[in-house]
Amino acid sequence: MALHPDRLFPTDAATRGIARALYETVADLPIVSPHGHTDPRWWATNEAFSDPATLFVTPDHYVTRMLVSQGVSFEALGIGQGAETDPRAIWRTFASNFHLFAGTPSKLWIEHALENVFGFSERLQSETADAAYERIQSVLQEDRFRPHGLYDRFNIEVIATTDGALDDLQWHRQIRESAWHGRVVPTYRPDAVTDPDQPGFADNLAKLAEVSGMSTGTWAGYLDAHRARRAVFRELGATATDHGHATPRTADMPQNEAASLYDRARTGRLGTGEAELFRAQMLTEMARMSAEDGMVMQLHCGSHRNHSRSVLADYGRDRGFDIPVPVSFTEALKPMLDAVGLEPQLRVILFTLDETTYTRELAPLAGAWPSLVLGPPWWFHDSFEGIRRYRQQVTETAGFYNTAGFNDDTRAITSIQARHDVARRTDCAFLAELVTSHRMEEDEAFAIAQDLAAGLARKAYRLG
Amino acid sequence: MALHPDRLFPTDAATRGIARALYETVADLPIVSPHGHTDPRWWATNEAFSDPATLFVTPDHYVTRMLVSQGVSFEALGIGQGAETDPRAIWRTFASNFHLFAGTPSKLWIEHALENVFGFSERLQSETADAAYERIQSVLQEDRFRPHGLYDRFNIEVIATTDGALDDLQWHRQIRESAWHGRVVPTYRPDAVTDPDQPGFADNLAKLAEVSGMSTGTWAGYLDAHRARRAVFRELGATATDHGHATPRTADMPQNEAASLYDRARTGRLGTGEAELFRAQMLTEMARMSAEDGMVMQLHCGSHRNHSRSVLADYGRDRGFDIPVPVSFTEALKPMLDAVGLEPQLRVILFTLDETTYTRELAPLAGAWPSLVLGPPWWFHDSFEGIRRYRQQVTETAGFYNTAGFNDDTRAITSIQARHDVARRTDCAFLAELVTSHRMEEDEAFAIAQDLAAGLARKAYRLG
Amino acid sequence: MALHPDRLFPTDAATRGIARALYETVADLPIVSPHGHTDPRWWATNEAFSDPATLFVTPDHYVTRMLVSQGVSFEALGIGQGAETDPRAIWRTFASNFHLFAGTPSKLWIEHALENVFGFSERLQSETADAAYERIQSVLQEDRFRPHGLYDRFNIEVIATTDGALDDLQWHRQIRESAWHGRVVPTYRPDAVTDPDQPGFADNLAKLAEVSGMSTGTWAGYLDAHRARRAVFRELGATATDHGHATPRTADMPQNEAASLYDRARTGRLGTGEAELFRAQMLTEMARMSAEDGMVMQLHCGSHRNHSRSVLADYGRDRGFDIPVPVSFTEALKPMLDAVGLEPQLRVILFTLDETTYTRELAPLAGAWPSLVLGPPWWFHDSFEGIRRYRQQVTETAGFYNTAGFNDDTRAITSIQARHDVARRTDCAFLAELVTSHRMEEDEAFAIAQDLAAGLARKAYRLG
Repeated sequence: MALHPDRLFPTDAATRGIARALYETVADLPIVSPHGHTDPRWWATNEAFSDPATLFVTPDHYVTRMLVSQGVSFEALGIGQGAETDPRAIWRTFASNFHLFAGTPSKLWIEHALENVFGFSERLQSETADAAYERIQSVLQEDRFRPHGLYDRFNIEVIATTDGALDDLQWHRQIRESAWHGRVVPTYRPDAVTDPDQPGFADNLAKLAEVSGMSTGTWAGYLDAHRARRAVFRELGATATDHGHATPRTADMPQNEAASLYDRARTGRLGTGEAELFRAQMLTEMARMSAEDGMVMQLHCGSHRNHSRSVLADYGRDRGFDIPVPVSFTEALKPMLDAVGLEPQLRVILFTLDETTYTRELAPLAGAWPSLVLGPPWWFHDSFEGIRRYRQQVTETAGFYNTAGFNDDTRAITSIQARHDVARRTDCAFLAELVTSHRMEEDEAFAIAQDLAAGLARKAYRLG
Repeated sequence: MALHPDRLFPTDAATRGIARALYETVADLPIVSPHGHTDPRWWATNEAFSDPATLFVTPDHYVTRMLVSQGVSFEALGIGQGAETDPRAIWRTFASNFHLFAGTPSKLWIEHALENVFGFSERLQSETADAAYERIQSVLQEDRFRPHGLYDRFNIEVIATTDGALDDLQWHRQIRESAWHGRVVPTYRPDAVTDPDQPGFADNLAKLAEVSGMSTGTWAGYLDAHRARRAVFRELGATATDHGHATPRTADMPQNEAASLYDRARTGRLGTGEAELFRAQMLTEMARMSAEDGMVMQLHCGSHRNHSRSVLADYGRDRGFDIPVPVSFTEALKPMLDAVGLEPQLRVILFTLDETTYTRELAPLAGAWPSLVLGPPWWFHDSFEGIRRYRQQVTETAGFYNTAGFNDDTRAITSIQARHDVARRTDCAFLAELVTSHRMEEDEAFAIAQDLAAGLARKAYRLG
Repeated sequence: MALHPDRLFPTDAATRGIARALYETVADLPIVSPHGHTDPRWWATNEAFSDPATLFVTPDHYVTRMLVSQGVSFEALGIGQGAETDPRAIWRTFASNFHLFAGTPSKLWIEHALENVFGFSERLQSETADAAYERIQSVLQEDRFRPHGLYDRFNIEVIATTDGALDDLQWHRQIRESAWHGRVVPTYRPDAVTDPDQPGFADNLAKLAEVSGMSTGTWAGYLDAHRARRAVFRELGATATDHGHATPRTADMPQNEAASLYDRARTGRLGTGEAELFRAQMLTEMARMSAEDGMVMQLHCGSHRNHSRSVLADYGRDRGFDIPVPVSFTEALKPMLDAVGLEPQLRVILFTLDETTYTRELAPLAGAWPSLVLGPPWWFHDSFEGIRRYRQQVTETAGFYNTAGFNDDTRAITSIQARHDVARRTDCAFLAELVTSHRMEEDEAFAIAQDLAAGLARKAYRLG
């Protein structure tokens, strides 16, 4: 195997040379990771990971869904009742099916981690499964393979986690109070208390009252509870909120109507379509708060979560059975934007799983509204071809400076560096093509490469 | 003219070299053609084709629609009342307008057939029309230009036709009973008896009763009639069914409600939207049967058939006036998938005319559900750019092994080899780019090239 | 800076060589500009432009929206109450933010104009702002920088403006009556009198009666008024109409129902959805007139105009806050096409902001219906990547001859040559790739390059 130093670069020699030169100036820049799903507990406790299967296979839904799609059972991957419990057996299943990942970003990320993190550069397959397993297992207890070791080896400057509004943030407090030099910040994700369709919504509102010290029995109190929680998150370093809605619909009802809608939501008396309306109103309320407190608002929408009833029932959430649906932002965002879209402090970062919105809606929106920024390619699109399509489709209308750089969005800790590396290589390849087709001069490309690798993320998320 | 040996390969020398090397290993592999529209009568009778116009022009809606779009009349192409009857005149019209096909796959297919099948390698145009006509006409009676000759020259391993549920399959029986070594299998396409909007639906149900020997007066009997017909098709070698619906909507109603809906369908008393609901329910019923009998289910949807009322009235169906509409699979397939999507025997191959579904829905669906496979680029997308977009957009999420290889989908017999050749070249070009950008190693590319050329189609359609 | 002679050409040496050779044969062809938004007053009066800011910045919504998206105020760009009035200050704001345009077509167009029109080839930035300003300002009064001078230097053969149905066309008359050799023709854009949602619709109908001399108090009179205005436009050289609708919906109601709908529209008594229905009916009526009088009908739809309420209120229309929405043509156009789509004189040119319609709908429609032609990439897509995607996605189904060549669609007079140059280069690059991948022979590419540069536009718009 052995990672090739020119991977992902254009084949044309002149263009490859420029891509390589650009990449060399950004390869070792610090990693700014403003959005992701690592567990704050890891960073607080610095505990060692137990085994290769737990590290690479079982929790990574990119990996498990692909194996399941080809007939491997969840149980064989350590998931569900009566599942395989031997990590070596799980690893062997994974290794012997690794050829299924040919052409996928998972393959690039995993091979990068195996080689660069663990020094294992043979091809992963049945024949090498045990050797790889042992190589990884033999070092997991060492400091440099624990979270803090990886933080330093990956040259992370700052990393954000994603945390529920009700979370006590104990791990974040512990990190803050520790002597460790790492910068790990929370992100305010209030879906459990803004989405009436979430299980236990009424209970969640009660808990929100408890943790915020504000009564959530009224609309005004409920909004104050959000303000209080946002303040707590900010004290622990948070600069952003995140909203995972099925659709980007927003609303801006008169406050008395919103209050009455909230009463119905709180007491379980919403009519048809009113849960969606409440979520829509809450996006505008969150934007209003962001315009006041300066927290950057992220909008992740367009996924039909848990597409298989059986998989959800038997194996739980986040198993790779989340499937995108068509999305349109133009009409959906207008109420929120008409309310606060020109406020100087507001910044909203938009993510999409529906690539048709890149040229049709997102680039035109971000290329006009000063409050809107385009998030990097998300989830299925966080890949060589995905990033390339994004730049090709977004840049001509929105330029580079209305985009938010890169974020890794990952819960797979060993893949953090690999993902940023893929993004940096792909962006440098894109810039190199602009240079050799004389759409950009070389010195401009070098400057923009810096921004794409870290500067834009820092700026977009106010992490400077 | 003369077909260039490097056509469709990348221009970069190193990448072209790898593409060529890959192609050399698959160029002569047998053709597995699991889905198409050749006439079973051809294979049964081995009659010679009458003339070049009948072979290349009149029945090929890719050809006729393009000529019509530029002002040629259907009549001049031998179609409609008072149409031209002289095949040479039709051929001349075609040849003198052949420049209209610049940049289209039809041009590649036709030139491939002219040169490789008929040994005519001049450019087709007014000046060469007669020479081409005579060249073709002079050999059509020879054995090697008849269906069986083409079967052997094209190195076809198996070819499927598409046959109505009511078809008596006489030609398939005759093929089976003959001494000919070719493998031609039918495909069960029951639209005429599952779609209440089809003309003569009630009559069709009566005929279904007749040919199946099952009463179609009840829901249970109607389903049994399908089971019986499917069994007959299987006896004649069928491994697949095919469903041409306007939308991919599925439903899974309680059986008593489905029975009552069927009664209304049968007796012409469906309310608004109920024909669509019945089709939706029938997709789930067909999937249930496939989970039992193992027939692979193909879903072709998203075409607005017969977009011109006049063209339909005056010239009939399949004249190139079928225009795609937006499609979404995610919500639409969920009822069927929740019903049987995890059944081990079920396999559903999905086709689309709406390329936006590649990254947004189809690759995520096929990359998770074990029963779902992505069909190859269909119809307008069965072309160099179309196949390339498909691989670029599908592979990173679904890999190669959740795709069904290639099928030619053609009624134009002389184009069969040409279409597989274009697909093989385009896939090899794609793999070569993965190699030179170091996303794949060379030996992996050689293995996958084999699968893409024939192995995946064989496996997906259970034709091994 | 200095424009590179090989800009936008492929990097591969062989392909670049062919692209360059193709481009050399079309670079100096006359410009046929059948659709745009230059002010007819310019062409009539030949007045000098006042200053660089008025020429390049304030009226160009591509430019202002990008600056606003990055926090520059409209006021600083000379727009709105209390706006900056010093053109040099506006120019400095523009120049110091010019790096924001990296990777956009605006950058290419502006640099092309600065260098080729004004001989300024330094990079535009704070440090060079004044030098550029002075260079431009010093020559604006010279003949060759006035409209007629630019017309000749750009080698314009014909240019169309876009004019309301109520316009008195005085500037067009004045051009006609003058000794100037330029060919400037109007285009009939009747939105103000076909869209009941337009402000002042009833007044507009009254004015239509006045200018046409036909009573608009009845449906028949209203249609006659259109006929009369179309005739007047034709007398002044118009060959086309243009229709800017939110959606492509068409309708073909019985005439008595249409008459009654018109009465309700005229008297402000339309019910919900009836304004849309009236617009839909009017597209069919306009098509019927086109089938009679031979005016080519352009359909521009799918933009949500004035997406920001505040921007509209404070700064007016056409400020870059027009955002596309999803569009579908297939069902929408069917009523019109069933009515007149096979009429030999009808020609309808379709434009889209939703690129998903290229392969899904527009290429199949134009590749079948003889009356339909695809317009060039529009607005956000009139760029290197946009034109490239268009050719890659459209050609395989529609060929080249069902497309309408290029139009610049611009109100920025200095960018006219630059836009055609970008389109010619991009098309030659595309053709060169067809040649080196052996999808086209070289002599075919040379012929098609001529058509794409000017021939197809001339033919599509009947400007021959």
